[in-house]
Amino acid sequence: MTTTEHRPDAPELGDPRLDRDAGLDVAHLQRVLLGHYADLRLGARRLMADPRFHKQDDLTLAEHRERVLGQLRLLAAEGDVHRSFPERFGGANDHGGFLARFEELTSADPSLQIKSGVQWGLFASAIYHLGTERNHDEFLADSLSVRVPGAFAMTETGHGSDVAAIGTTATYDAQTQELVVHTPFRAAWKDYLGNAGQHATAAVVFARLITRGVDHGVHAVYVPIRDEATGEFLPGVGGEDDGLKGGLNGVDNGRLWFDHVRVPRTNLLARYGDVAEDGTYSSPIESPGRRFFTMLGTLVQGRVSLDGAAVSAARLGLAIAVTYGNQRRQFAGPGAEEVVVLDYAEHQRRLLPLLAETYAAGFAHEDLLAAFDDVFSGRNDTPETREDLETLAAALKPTSTWHALTTLQTCREACGGAGFLAENRIVGLRADMDVYVTFEGDNTVLYQLVGKRLLADYSTSFKHLDAVKVARLVAERAADAARYRTPLTRAVQTISDAGDPRRSAGQLRDAETQRALLVDRVETMVAEVATALRPAHKADPATAAALFNAHQHDLVEAARAHAELIQWESFTAALDRVSDAGTTQVLTWLRDLFGLSLVERHLAWYLVNGRLSAHRARTVTSYIDRLLTRLRPHAQGLVDAFGYDQVHVRAAIASGAEAARQDEARAYYRAQRASGDAPVPEKRH
Amino acid sequence: MTTTEHRPDAPELGDPRLDRDAGLDVAHLQRVLLGHYADLRLGARRLMADPRFHKQDDLTLAEHRERVLGQLRLLAAEGDVHRSFPERFGGANDHGGFLARFEELTSADPSLQIKSGVQWGLFASAIYHLGTERNHDEFLADSLSVRVPGAFAMTETGHGSDVAAIGTTATYDAQTQELVVHTPFRAAWKDYLGNAGQHATAAVVFARLITRGVDHGVHAVYVPIRDEATGEFLPGVGGEDDGLKGGLNGVDNGRLWFDHVRVPRTNLLARYGDVAEDGTYSSPIESPGRRFFTMLGTLVQGRVSLDGAAVSAARLGLAIAVTYGNQRRQFAGPGAEEVVVLDYAEHQRRLLPLLAETYAAGFAHEDLLAAFDDVFSGRNDTPETREDLETLAAALKPTSTWHALTTLQTCREACGGAGFLAENRIVGLRADMDVYVTFEGDNTVLYQLVGKRLLADYSTSFKHLDAVKVARLVAERAADAARYRTPLTRAVQTISDAGDPRRSAGQLRDAETQRALLVDRVETMVAEVATALRPAHKADPATAAALFNAHQHDLVEAARAHAELIQWESFTAALDRVSDAGTTQVLTWLRDLFGLSLVERHLAWYLVNGRLSAHRARTVTSYIDRLLTRLRPHAQGLVDAFGYDQVHVRAAIASGAEAARQDEARAYYRAQRASGDAPVPEKRH
Repeated sequence: MTTTEHRPDAPELGDPRLDRDAGLDVAHLQRVLLGHYADLRLGARRLMADPRFHKQDDLTLAEHRERVLGQLRLLAAEGDVHRSFPERFGGANDHGGFLARFEELTSADPSLQIKSGVQWGLFASAIYHLGTERNHDEFLADSLSVRVPGAFAMTETGHGSDVAAIGTTATYDAQTQELVVHTPFRAAWKDYLGNAGQHATAAVVFARLITRGVDHGVHAVYVPIRDEATGEFLPGVGGEDDGLKGGLNGVDNGRLWFDHVRVPRTNLLARYGDVAEDGTYSSPIESPGRRFFTMLGTLVQGRVSLDGAAVSAARLGLAIAVTYGNQRRQFAGPGAEEVVVLDYAEHQRRLLPLLAETYAAGFAHEDLLAAFDDVFSGRNDTPETREDLETLAAALKPTSTWHALTTLQTCREACGGAGFLAENRIVGLRADMDVYVTFEGDNTVLYQLVGKRLLADYSTSFKHLDAVKVARLVAERAADAARYRTPLTRAVQTISDAGDPRRSAGQLRDAETQRALLVDRVETMVAEVATALRPAHKADPATAAALFNAHQHDLVEAARAHAELIQWESFTAALDRVSDAGTTQVLTWLRDLFGLSLVERHLAWYLVNGRLSAHRARTVTSYIDRLLTRLRPHAQGLVDAFGYDQVHVRAAIASGAEAARQDEARAYYRAQRASGDAPVPEKRH
Repeated sequence: MTTTEHRPDAPELGDPRLDRDAGLDVAHLQRVLLGHYADLRLGARRLMADPRFHKQDDLTLAEHRERVLGQLRLLAAEGDVHRSFPERFGGANDHGGFLARFEELTSADPSLQIKSGVQWGLFASAIYHLGTERNHDEFLADSLSVRVPGAFAMTETGHGSDVAAIGTTATYDAQTQELVVHTPFRAAWKDYLGNAGQHATAAVVFARLITRGVDHGVHAVYVPIRDEATGEFLPGVGGEDDGLKGGLNGVDNGRLWFDHVRVPRTNLLARYGDVAEDGTYSSPIESPGRRFFTMLGTLVQGRVSLDGAAVSAARLGLAIAVTYGNQRRQFAGPGAEEVVVLDYAEHQRRLLPLLAETYAAGFAHEDLLAAFDDVFSGRNDTPETREDLETLAAALKPTSTWHALTTLQTCREACGGAGFLAENRIVGLRADMDVYVTFEGDNTVLYQLVGKRLLADYSTSFKHLDAVKVARLVAERAADAARYRTPLTRAVQTISDAGDPRRSAGQLRDAETQRALLVDRVETMVAEVATALRPAHKADPATAAALFNAHQHDLVEAARAHAELIQWESFTAALDRVSDAGTTQVLTWLRDLFGLSLVERHLAWYLVNGRLSAHRARTVTSYIDRLLTRLRPHAQGLVDAFGYDQVHVRAAIASGAEAARQDEARAYYRAQRASGDAPVPEKRH
């Protein structure tokens, strides 16, 4: 074990002048965290050091929007933002690298990340992924250069997550060879669209394609919406500005409606469905359902990038709060000196498990990015790998975005009133991240998608069996479940219940024990929901829907458990990428803290289901306490390894100013005491 | 049982035109919720219907500050804001009513509530409570009329919660009969002070009073800081604007420093400590410690009012989210119609327990207000009742302010993208409420105060006993604790484990069972911490501090459990104030939902400590599910009973617009189907 904690000569942590950590090779860990796209990330961070990209807090709504549009044009000019696009459009066919760079925009201003995401990740990407070569030739260059700022007009006021139910129509008129785009009622207004409030001069509009009296479901149509010279809506197009929002105010969200707006037939983004001059519909994908999900599948890119941005924001928040917590002193300790607040156990309890989870989310994101690049590069693009990718993104995006909100809020509170000032950045980051939990797929809806996939996988093994075999398998699983009430217990717990508590903690530290506990929970929860839902197969639709509804919460919780397991597996796999022994030790403690925090969070489940005895449950918490003590001296190194410079963090309280103030105050009192003319306290008078 | 749920003729809830609830007498419930100060609250709400008081989202920081200052002057002119002050200053000596009215400002703009709190609740109240009649004559009228906007200069950059450690000094100079107010180092700058950023022309400055070489601890001094005509700092005074914050931007927070600023001796607010012309110090309270806490005790008023504001904000958020959830439809149900989102079990799971907790917090606040008025009116003002009041406020303020943040965030997410728009108010309320969890006493620090009081009460019974008797008592309690592992079990659980699950749920519904579970948890947690800390009495300071630190988290959790119990008791007591049988039934379900949600939240504790068997633990969750189904039809009535009008709620999505949009869309499709010329879906083609 290499650790600083028991060495009498260990440097005092919390000293801002100290940037090394004897147990942790911070530079090495930083390289591990930068991951596969290290060079691209470092390049993007260098770019984001330019003050022209930094959020300014003193701007009006209009000024902030204008500034971010200007930043977008700077990025377009720089050009590397086109990495994911074909070479003939100045790109590099590099999908993973494209997103990795995007995520780094978060430190400058999340509005820039999202406005870029709207322009290139949604608007231009829809043209690219849903369009034909002809569509590309016509529309792609101007969208990439931001000559045409564009909106991605999918969501409607009346339909957020349920895209299949949108009301906007695009009806083919064979006489004029035009598509007539129309909004039939108020609830079908497009809403919450980035760029639509002010800047967009065109939109990719999702509408049900109707030709020859047949509704072919949701397709995308390129529709000019504003006069490029005047900025006024074109005839037949209208809308509203969504106005001020809870955050991301550098993005101009807005609403659009269409009153029989005519565009050429060739404005249909026709890769997955086309209309011939005579109105004949054709598609390379026969099933309307599969076609719909294929088209929607390109949305996964947005979810992957939000997952990455959430990790970045959580890291920034923790870099600020941990640095401040290492310098701030409050309340006199046993000596005369006031105590550094991160030395308080409750402060550690609040911040360090979130730090562990942020590491887990970061490693999981790196794996998600790899899966994304495998599919989108075409290296490993099959219906199965696409579905796996979509499920993985649907599991991780909710988990990391909710985590980012919790982390930023906790960091803000841990910094007290200082945390509430915009100059210390945490409140701004939190406000900007807020909508990440409901856009690009509402988190609760995404967890339900994951839950349904888990159920489908569970039932796959039954699909080709007859009733007798199914019954046998179910019985077998039931026996398994019954055995579970002892085996983990037997393997892990009974020994320790009797013996030395340190041995019991040692077993919790064992990766296999942690994995067994986490895997078991997911499998059992899924099996229980599946069993509970079985009567739905033969029930009438209303009864089936009621049954499903009754287990909706369990399904959501199963998906969450699945996502947590994935994060834990990614963290554990990442330990192999660390080559320094001290760093491996510290990171293993951090992984243990993450794993055991999950077990503690769901302790009631483990107890109710007989997986842990009451005695062992207590050791979970006491081992967490030991881990917090072990990790505390490395807290600064662990946030320093995120690799952000002051120019990225830009928080007054994390600049060293607090340490300087504390030093000055302590020096003042020391000098006063030494001088002998300090006022005498009344009680000693 | 009177309930609508099983009656076939029950009106469809979620229908915005419906404002009655057959099981609930909404008007009666509204009167119950208005409580003791109903008339004052209704009057304040009528006043807050005036658009001049409403927050406008399109203002710059400077404009918002100016607007709120103007609102303050409107309130001063109206005059009833002086209720808590003596009659000779236009008040009514009505302390509870003063705060009740204040809380109602929240619906207009929390910045107004806080700026009013700074001016009257802190600045003027400090003059009143800490000052002599002479001080009152000199300073009170101008502070009440806002002729002098004032700052309450207590917190320093280097010392937030630890007021005793502030660095600012007020040194008496007998030669000139002046107090010299001085900031010795940067960390002693006053910070985060409302009004100090821009408007304040005077401040009540907390400083250590030094006379004749003796430091008499923290006292308050009235110090003019800005030229009333020019708004420039007076000589020797300086400061900085805290700038943009995460919310409450109608309040101009700022920093102040003093460079040997001289004020007359008589500017000392001298009720609890005075300096004679010759520099002799005198005080009616001999102990410096007790004097300090007496002076700080006046701060309790702020905590009481924040507790009330938190309840108001949570109610507003739920009124918006529940109303919208009752009108919004998403995803097709078993029939052709889309499902009202509040019919989804997960949506109920997210919102209804928060609704129950908001009721509990509201009833607990009403009790806190009564306790506050008893003490501050002098009707029941003893050191003991003051201490009880301070402990009660320290328990409830953290609980309700954290609850408000959780509730507003959940409401915002439950409204999806619409919830993120400023026009729907939730994000603004949440941003404004954010700092409530750390100001006027950091929540974690307040819970520690409560925890220490619980420990003190616990050890009181030991105080006057000799060692042998203590040992016996400890042994007795230990036996009790051992018995606890069965008695509740025996009384509550073993019967039901064997029998009918419905009987088991029936017992959970029993108020005595809920109380026993909640009381037991508090008592056991306190006893465990007390036992664990016992060695600290004989240990050296460093060891004692380390031991205390190791149990800091447990102490905080014990305080939280104590606060939850208080809320539950207040809710239960309030049931007696309901005279309508149907309303009593619905509210009892809501109380049960609150009680059992607490048990579910802490289920691991009950399991680990043998209070509930695994079998009974499962029934907690299944009974909660049943309660959610029972309460769902009453959700609208329960938020309508908060009694806010559209003019208070002012959220576009809760105005009925959503229901109108949904009705229009459904009518469109019905007409299209009836016409026979609807497009045919491709799959049926």
